[in-house]
Amino acid sequence: MGIFKEMESEVRSYSRAFPVIFDRAQGELIYDREGKTYLDFLGGAGTLNYGHNNPRFKDALLRYIEDDGITHGLDMHTRAKAEFLEALQKHILEPRDLDYVVQFTGPTGTNCVEAALKIARKVTGRENVISFTNGFHGVSMGALATTGNSHHRGAAGTTLGGVTFMPFDGYLGEGIDTTEYLDKVLSDGSSGIDYPAAVLVEAVQGEGGINAASLDWLRNLSEVCKRHEVLLILDDIQAGCGRTGQFFSFEAAGIKPDIVTLSKSLSGYGLPFAITLLAPELDQWKPGEHNGTFRGNNLAFVTARAAIEHYWTDDAFEQSIQKKGEYIRQRFDAINKKYAGGQFELRGRGMMRGLACDSGDRAGAICKAAFERGLIIETSGADDEVVKTLCPLTISDANLRRGLDILEASFAEACADMAITESDAGDSKADAA
Amino acid sequence: MGIFKEMESEVRSYSRAFPVIFDRAQGELIYDREGKTYLDFLGGAGTLNYGHNNPRFKDALLRYIEDDGITHGLDMHTRAKAEFLEALQKHILEPRDLDYVVQFTGPTGTNCVEAALKIARKVTGRENVISFTNGFHGVSMGALATTGNSHHRGAAGTTLGGVTFMPFDGYLGEGIDTTEYLDKVLSDGSSGIDYPAAVLVEAVQGEGGINAASLDWLRNLSEVCKRHEVLLILDDIQAGCGRTGQFFSFEAAGIKPDIVTLSKSLSGYGLPFAITLLAPELDQWKPGEHNGTFRGNNLAFVTARAAIEHYWTDDAFEQSIQKKGEYIRQRFDAINKKYAGGQFELRGRGMMRGLACDSGDRAGAICKAAFERGLIIETSGADDEVVKTLCPLTISDANLRRGLDILEASFAEACADMAITESDAGDSKADAA
Amino acid sequence: MGIFKEMESEVRSYSRAFPVIFDRAQGELIYDREGKTYLDFLGGAGTLNYGHNNPRFKDALLRYIEDDGITHGLDMHTRAKAEFLEALQKHILEPRDLDYVVQFTGPTGTNCVEAALKIARKVTGRENVISFTNGFHGVSMGALATTGNSHHRGAAGTTLGGVTFMPFDGYLGEGIDTTEYLDKVLSDGSSGIDYPAAVLVEAVQGEGGINAASLDWLRNLSEVCKRHEVLLILDDIQAGCGRTGQFFSFEAAGIKPDIVTLSKSLSGYGLPFAITLLAPELDQWKPGEHNGTFRGNNLAFVTARAAIEHYWTDDAFEQSIQKKGEYIRQRFDAINKKYAGGQFELRGRGMMRGLACDSGDRAGAICKAAFERGLIIETSGADDEVVKTLCPLTISDANLRRGLDILEASFAEACADMAITESDAGDSKADAA
Amino acid sequence: MGIFKEMESEVRSYSRAFPVIFDRAQGELIYDREGKTYLDFLGGAGTLNYGHNNPRFKDALLRYIEDDGITHGLDMHTRAKAEFLEALQKHILEPRDLDYVVQFTGPTGTNCVEAALKIARKVTGRENVISFTNGFHGVSMGALATTGNSHHRGAAGTTLGGVTFMPFDGYLGEGIDTTEYLDKVLSDGSSGIDYPAAVLVEAVQGEGGINAASLDWLRNLSEVCKRHEVLLILDDIQAGCGRTGQFFSFEAAGIKPDIVTLSKSLSGYGLPFAITLLAPELDQWKPGEHNGTFRGNNLAFVTARAAIEHYWTDDAFEQSIQKKGEYIRQRFDAINKKYAGGQFELRGRGMMRGLACDSGDRAGAICKAAFERGLIIETSGADDEVVKTLCPLTISDANLRRGLDILEASFAEACADMAITESDAGDSKADAA
Repeated sequence: MGIFKEMESEVRSYSRAFPVIFDRAQGELIYDREGKTYLDFLGGAGTLNYGHNNPRFKDALLRYIEDDGITHGLDMHTRAKAEFLEALQKHILEPRDLDYVVQFTGPTGTNCVEAALKIARKVTGRENVISFTNGFHGVSMGALATTGNSHHRGAAGTTLGGVTFMPFDGYLGEGIDTTEYLDKVLSDGSSGIDYPAAVLVEAVQGEGGINAASLDWLRNLSEVCKRHEVLLILDDIQAGCGRTGQFFSFEAAGIKPDIVTLSKSLSGYGLPFAITLLAPELDQWKPGEHNGTFRGNNLAFVTARAAIEHYWTDDAFEQSIQKKGEYIRQRFDAINKKYAGGQFELRGRGMMRGLACDSGDRAGAICKAAFERGLIIETSGADDEVVKTLCPLTISDANLRRGLDILEASFAEACADMAITESDAGDSKADAA
Repeated sequence: MGIFKEMESEVRSYSRAFPVIFDRAQGELIYDREGKTYLDFLGGAGTLNYGHNNPRFKDALLRYIEDDGITHGLDMHTRAKAEFLEALQKHILEPRDLDYVVQFTGPTGTNCVEAALKIARKVTGRENVISFTNGFHGVSMGALATTGNSHHRGAAGTTLGGVTFMPFDGYLGEGIDTTEYLDKVLSDGSSGIDYPAAVLVEAVQGEGGINAASLDWLRNLSEVCKRHEVLLILDDIQAGCGRTGQFFSFEAAGIKPDIVTLSKSLSGYGLPFAITLLAPELDQWKPGEHNGTFRGNNLAFVTARAAIEHYWTDDAFEQSIQKKGEYIRQRFDAINKKYAGGQFELRGRGMMRGLACDSGDRAGAICKAAFERGLIIETSGADDEVVKTLCPLTISDANLRRGLDILEASFAEACADMAITESDAGDSKADAA
Repeated sequence: MGIFKEMESEVRSYSRAFPVIFDRAQGELIYDREGKTYLDFLGGAGTLNYGHNNPRFKDALLRYIEDDGITHGLDMHTRAKAEFLEALQKHILEPRDLDYVVQFTGPTGTNCVEAALKIARKVTGRENVISFTNGFHGVSMGALATTGNSHHRGAAGTTLGGVTFMPFDGYLGEGIDTTEYLDKVLSDGSSGIDYPAAVLVEAVQGEGGINAASLDWLRNLSEVCKRHEVLLILDDIQAGCGRTGQFFSFEAAGIKPDIVTLSKSLSGYGLPFAITLLAPELDQWKPGEHNGTFRGNNLAFVTARAAIEHYWTDDAFEQSIQKKGEYIRQRFDAINKKYAGGQFELRGRGMMRGLACDSGDRAGAICKAAFERGLIIETSGADDEVVKTLCPLTISDANLRRGLDILEASFAEACADMAITESDAGDSKADAA
Repeated sequence: MGIFKEMESEVRSYSRAFPVIFDRAQGELIYDREGKTYLDFLGGAGTLNYGHNNPRFKDALLRYIEDDGITHGLDMHTRAKAEFLEALQKHILEPRDLDYVVQFTGPTGTNCVEAALKIARKVTGRENVISFTNGFHGVSMGALATTGNSHHRGAAGTTLGGVTFMPFDGYLGEGIDTTEYLDKVLSDGSSGIDYPAAVLVEAVQGEGGINAASLDWLRNLSEVCKRHEVLLILDDIQAGCGRTGQFFSFEAAGIKPDIVTLSKSLSGYGLPFAITLLAPELDQWKPGEHNGTFRGNNLAFVTARAAIEHYWTDDAFEQSIQKKGEYIRQRFDAINKKYAGGQFELRGRGMMRGLACDSGDRAGAICKAAFERGLIIETSGADDEVVKTLCPLTISDANLRRGLDILEASFAEACADMAITESDAGDSKADAA
């Protein structure tokens, strides 16, 4: 532990909440150096949708390395890249009638967002971009300007411009469709909102507090963009790759964004990987305009292809996600009623779920209590007030139940001060499927 | 090949110069799908200092994966990270009397530059940053603002501010020390140059044309920074990890930057990895202020540690780089005299060498001719006019000689139109060691 | 006329609507070179509240010039300046219990807005400023960034940053208090709206379409600013100096802004003059930080003092404005009912009144018809759809009635196509006092 | 005096150096309220080239006011404006073969600079503007970004972007033509200097320290601009209207800028007035894009026309300026030799002259000593180290000699500590014509 204290920057964060040294991991289980086992409901913040070191991809990865397959390939053509593209086209894009072109950006989420913003501005010749309250899109300067959180914005040490924040779904209260406000400022030559290149949005805001936009709102947003010839960029870095029940988080709304960003679980194995999907007419890049050293992380291509070919060739995986998601929802609902008198707010979609507590302190206490019980789980939201689960989509039913049992016990402990009347409470486990 | 044409964005660039599909690689050799072998003098643009798939690190990597070591760890403590930090401290920092703190940023060069810029601005409370003509530091918005190349800048689609460009060493001609100009504007309350947080510089500009700053200039620059209490950020992404003959490119000048960025060859195996080294007093980050999903690419920690422990525990590797570097210099000098009448300009330091031709077309023709002969080599510079070599530092003497022989033949072909008088020409091979 | 066509820039605008050459003017009357007389309901866009060449100030001005009083005084102390300050203090500030410090800025509205923005940012150390939809604050770069109109913003040729636009009173529809939205984003650390130095607002938006904020909204806005320790800058350039019925437009709401900008009618004689009023604790300027050549336009000091001493030593002038304002309102209401079936929207407060027509073309046609009848009147609003009156506050009752008669006739002509049912129509003149 | 202390902002500056209350003025003489007379060598910082309240214009002004000529005319056509345009065309532009179009901007220097910057960016579609070290162009946000002085820049409270500062003539030392550096960065696609819309320059920098560019440098600058199709904006606000010996400061260099800004002495009477002259092909404004309330300050039109017709119909005035300028130069040279051993630096051209002292304290002491002797004179330069004269061009020979005598006595007093050897010293008065 000493070496971290001595040598690692103060910027480290998750390691403060989980002050152990991890060693090995498999599926939803993670082991520390002392051999203690933890259930992982944080899931690499959405990066481990297929679990840790998924054995279904491991052999392909080992074989590729053993055979001296290209590891680092800049942006050159490699066999591994070709095979990834073929799998993506055949099993993901074609069945969904999507004709995107694939841009391999630097292998981080913030990089594929930067690429999306750049091409949107370049193609339209406009500089402004609409982002939303509580949006989170990364912390390199271009992406950071679109990120709402003042903790992150403040670290820039400089003004972040070129972005207008609009209220996300629900921000102005019940019954107000905030896309109408967006429509109005775009229609109004005197609104002060410079005509934008694009609207950048998450269908379910992850870091912002597991805020799931309604499908109607997403459709209306898409309509407003079309009406004003503004590009729609859907940031599917956290909510994509199956998390909400389908490969893309926007599928349920039946919309087709102009640009999609993917990263996190894309490689299937937790390896750095990110792509930007572009409607073909937007692919107006000149060669090398957006470059970067690690655009060709071929190990990620190998596992990403394996993930697609294993999980996305039929709808069994989608159905299992939806079923588990509903189970999580029911458990969260019961926990809320039992320990918070229903005062907490259920949020999310699919297996991306959260309970918004009455304070960040409460949510922190719950996560701390869970960790002591062997469950790794984290918060999000403006005040870290939302206890969220991003457990592997591949988690066993037994472990899912076990994790939620621990979570319930942790709520029980951390909400002991909340006086719950009999009538408020139910039996949370009884609700479970 | 069809899949790339069909599905990959027009932004791809290297793949245009080398229109084959690569499959396997070992050391300085790379093989395409048809089984053809190439000598790799591009070296992942500086990422493959230890060659492709270095067998000395391969086993450690395979064993780690087989054992289900943590692959993805966000920024949590892992055994692999601890061991990397220990090796870095013991073999790299301590022997050089450097007391940096390590920030694990997103695993791309542009990301560790973004972190460096942010902390410099945050700590000093100043917004301006000095960068240099022909500097290249990445293409995410913050880094892009410090990158000189108009091709890349133009892709932003928006104004890039907060940066003042100053002339790099030699830019104002012989005999003018451009650090004096910098000193003057910083001393002058009416220069219009807002007082900067930091100066960001490469000791040897890679993408900018293999421009090696003189060691005196680097020392003067360091002095100017100290005098004005401006931070010195040394971007060692391409020139670091041994490329110039020592681990850091700035060692030869005897200076100690306040912040150092490392990436590219840091993992030793071509895996995405980047860190920002900070003088301890600058580590004023609040937890999580600069975050990112892939800060814990543990496979890279494993190979990076192996690279340090294998190559940097004594000075044998440094000596071999310096010897090979001198050989390359001599061959380049001879080639220049023989085929260009000495009109081309030799550039670089250590094994980072270039020949600045009379045009980008010429340099392009040379690289094309080399590729036809089985040598992968590329250009850099504002007009792509510099033929550069970034071959693995671990290349065998025989392959180094063979590669330079091919390069010489390529110059011979591409410079056939240049009338060289007898007296200009020498026998380039005779000069070689 | 030839000289204008030949030599004056295409940027000229009012002269296009009124293509004659004006020669002399007195009160609300203006004469062209051919001797034709016009009633002036444009009033220098709010600059001629006391009419053209008010005889009550004229002698003081002539005498000052004859005596070789200081004309140009940079920012030096002059007798004329002292006497202006004394009058301002005694008759305007003290009776209203306002303790502002006076900053003499360059003598244009945009300049006193620039000064206000600079001091607000400097004192708070924050960069963002909240402005409102349809706000107009000038076209120099700092002020332009706070101006909503895209026609003006587009002329910058560069991005305008550092400003967030919020919906003005009524913008989100009936029943939505937009200050609640402002309150929410300021309370929310993840709204993306950088914490602002100040809120900049007009109590009645002039160029934006004679949008009068309700007094409740102004009070709520003031409360939100106080709660979040954000400065309130009230731009009273057009609505101040009596236009709304009291000297300051914000008096009726009982609020006290931190900063107030005044210009236009301040000199009383149409001479260039502008000041920024600062709460004493905000006067943290260093000497000369905001400077400018014409801060000491002493002729304006002479007439401004005369205006204050003549009109503002008792409440007679205020009462007359309120009475005339009510008369204008009634006539506008009747016109709307008679010719537009009540479809047009009455706007404004005091003698700052407008009728928002169904289109800019309609409003333009009305003004054109009025000009042909000898009435100078103009439009404002995002689409120039609002026919507005800014006639001198000193206008005679007879001329006010005559002007409104012409306006009514012009509506009649320009609205002939609107089918008005009997029941919609009333007798507009009968409604008048 | 109390009223100023009580009510005027701390931003006041000149009034601190001259702590009296001025009352009347005539020509080069100015009188305080106590009746004390001062010789004015500050001249409204270049605004009083024709002296205070020039009797040759006074009658025209009085008559115009008496006759109720239009005082405030927005941007409408008036007789006074027509006559000004005719005089400008006939006596200033035509004889110099200049075909500029006239834009009436808000009546301050900073406003006409803002207009120049906006149209240059708009027409070229480029955002960057080149300005020079020590340049001063105003303090509204757009102009401030082009102003070098950190005292003024710091007051913005926000980042000022879109401008690149280049070294003015002489900044890099003797023998270095800084236009070559400009030429190089504009030719170099990797310089980091975004291709600019325009170069903005003063032929003689006033506030920056009376730095007169050589005529060769101006010609080279003009050539560089032409070669790169970058607009040349010449800011002639302080150095124009005869100050350097001809109407425009750039005439001597034989160049023709694309855009010229004029203000300060333009009205002839110290009244607020400013125009931007545009090459006809640049007049691509849409109506009203750059507007402002006081573009039609007709009193200024009246006196400006009178000034042109009186002083600029033959070359007598030019010759007298040049003769007086040479006399000032000689006296400055002698003062320098006698009291500073030639260590001070003579600067300027025509009647815009300065002596750069060894410190701002020295220069301040000299001006203070002068004021005590009845001479109003001020400093400029980055450290206020340059004692400058901007006395009326119309000053009598006797008063010019008297003023310089006072100045010499003030130098004698303030430089008493400088040990001047016999050989250094000369008789300063003997040198005078």
